[in-house]
Amino acid sequence: MALADTRYADRRRKLAAEIAGRRIDTLLVTNLIHVGYLSGFRGSNAALLVSTDLSARICTDGRYTTQIAEEAPDIPALIARPSAEALLREVTGPRRIGFEADAVSVSQLESFREACAEDVELVPVTGLVEALREVKDPQELEDLRSIASLATQALADLLEAGELAVGRTEREVAADLEYRMRRLGSERTSFDTIVASGPNSAKPHHGASDRVIARGDIVTIDYGAYREGANSDATRSFIMGEASDFSREIYEVVLEAQLAGIAAARPGARLVDVDAACRRVIADAGYGEYFVHSTGHGVGLEVHEAPFASQSGVGELREGMTLTIEPGIYVPGKGGVRIEDTLIITRGDAEIITGVSKDLTVV
Amino acid sequence: MALADTRYADRRRKLAAEIAGRRIDTLLVTNLIHVGYLSGFRGSNAALLVSTDLSARICTDGRYTTQIAEEAPDIPALIARPSAEALLREVTGPRRIGFEADAVSVSQLESFREACAEDVELVPVTGLVEALREVKDPQELEDLRSIASLATQALADLLEAGELAVGRTEREVAADLEYRMRRLGSERTSFDTIVASGPNSAKPHHGASDRVIARGDIVTIDYGAYREGANSDATRSFIMGEASDFSREIYEVVLEAQLAGIAAARPGARLVDVDAACRRVIADAGYGEYFVHSTGHGVGLEVHEAPFASQSGVGELREGMTLTIEPGIYVPGKGGVRIEDTLIITRGDAEIITGVSKDLTVV
Repeated sequence: MALADTRYADRRRKLAAEIAGRRIDTLLVTNLIHVGYLSGFRGSNAALLVSTDLSARICTDGRYTTQIAEEAPDIPALIARPSAEALLREVTGPRRIGFEADAVSVSQLESFREACAEDVELVPVTGLVEALREVKDPQELEDLRSIASLATQALADLLEAGELAVGRTEREVAADLEYRMRRLGSERTSFDTIVASGPNSAKPHHGASDRVIARGDIVTIDYGAYREGANSDATRSFIMGEASDFSREIYEVVLEAQLAGIAAARPGARLVDVDAACRRVIADAGYGEYFVHSTGHGVGLEVHEAPFASQSGVGELREGMTLTIEPGIYVPGKGGVRIEDTLIITRGDAEIITGVSKDLTVV
Repeated sequence: MALADTRYADRRRKLAAEIAGRRIDTLLVTNLIHVGYLSGFRGSNAALLVSTDLSARICTDGRYTTQIAEEAPDIPALIARPSAEALLREVTGPRRIGFEADAVSVSQLESFREACAEDVELVPVTGLVEALREVKDPQELEDLRSIASLATQALADLLEAGELAVGRTEREVAADLEYRMRRLGSERTSFDTIVASGPNSAKPHHGASDRVIARGDIVTIDYGAYREGANSDATRSFIMGEASDFSREIYEVVLEAQLAGIAAARPGARLVDVDAACRRVIADAGYGEYFVHSTGHGVGLEVHEAPFASQSGVGELREGMTLTIEPGIYVPGKGGVRIEDTLIITRGDAEIITGVSKDLTVV
């Protein structure tokens, strides 16, 4: 607990320095992911005030009285609801309080304003905590490696047990994979597991249906686990029984694109260039119109978070960031392939934390 | 598919009537749950325009080209991102367009404004679609019964298989319950499964940890399944091996409170009175300060939705609504009990859809 406390206090110290640069006295944090990142508290309702003088105050409701004392012992806690308004009501002006404009609804802002004294000004800010989160600390990286390794193990075990098989439904395969992750220590999936077979593999965000997997199908499995603030994200496509020329061709193109994306993912690389490195391979093979999404995203407290490698991605990679590289080709009616790894950006080659073999596997 | 279409068009017709009453021409729907409710589309990115003249227009991104054609075949679809802005850019004025102020962030509103022509006015509205959703149609009720029955069956099977046992961890029990629900047809849990044993049972929103269940523990299991837009929610507390006087006493008080709440849940009953019916029993037994949350909530497309039965609940119950009744007593350091059912409000006694037996069960 003592160790954890230091980590959260360190983050608040960094935030306080950023706050000062935005000409506000205090930040009202209402994005729950950010409350957790800055305090350690993981309940489903909370708000946090962090000030330039390093003071902090947190609020949640009566369901979490015990939990907040355990998880955020170093921050004075208020038990009230609604939480943000309760914190704001205690503030005496004159003060300029920033609020997270991406996380606060138009209705909430109205309610916040009513809770404030007349000389308290609410100022919209964006991206402050997000920016802090982009570069992970060693403990976060260790947690991300650990959860990615757990999920990889679950998929390997599933394959070895023959649970991906012709005649089974997509849903059965998803259930078995989730159970294996859960038994290995996952708290939940990091997103709804995708098991997309045959024509369903042409839908990048298909779930897992009652469709029975057939011989000749491509089966794309996009899966992730979550434990204590760390998510994992990876995708593999398999061929059932026998690979058609089409399946083999798009598999090879996607794999080449993915390896090109990984090679481009180095500190200093612009996010648009990482996306372009992937996209070019697919376009050159004549499948450009079938790669309908962006190349990748960061993985951390959220399974999709900054940085974003896309055609409109802003900024560049830095050491300690994470990034998925996940090109795909989706031909409606025929099928699709996606191959995805999560990387940690390091000084040299990126570290791939989601397993190694991507050889075309005929199950 | 034809059947489904009628259902969504019917909902849009009801919405259009409500829109007219708010003096707007069109509603921009960006709450994804609402987009699904009104269109049938269940992707993770979409926006929908519904106008008083019953015309509609939907937008999503390239990942969902195939899916949106299947799920919302009767609404012209635009493929672009960001979706709401793309729809707004197409609108010619003069028009008054309502937006969902509870679902739109302060940042998004800024971006929406930039996308609008000068003579298009954006008007905050709240509660429009939420109000439509409160009373369920027969198909929704059937889906809710079905998913509740699935979850109940999974818990019964778990108990019969001896998977709730001294010496197992909370997480193992949760994993087994989730796997059983998944195998019975659940797409995912409706929320993170709670298995709270011993001292953890005093935390109303504990998750499922590595704590090993011991003899004498109270174990509270709060669990739910989700399938095709329908959630379930139920809680049972069990006693492991031998019930202490304390465990027995709080169990009996909570059960009496829960039955009082169920008896009060009839059409025309005020939500505050349903809450009071539960709360009174617990207060009279001297445990008032340990019932730290509200009595219940609706269950439907979301696992927590209107109506809300609390000390500040507004409105009254109507036939066709759903409501959980879930009183609890949580004594820090000693333990807690919660008993929860989901009800459908009917003309007579409420219909309990989450199983029957609530006798104190010593496992």
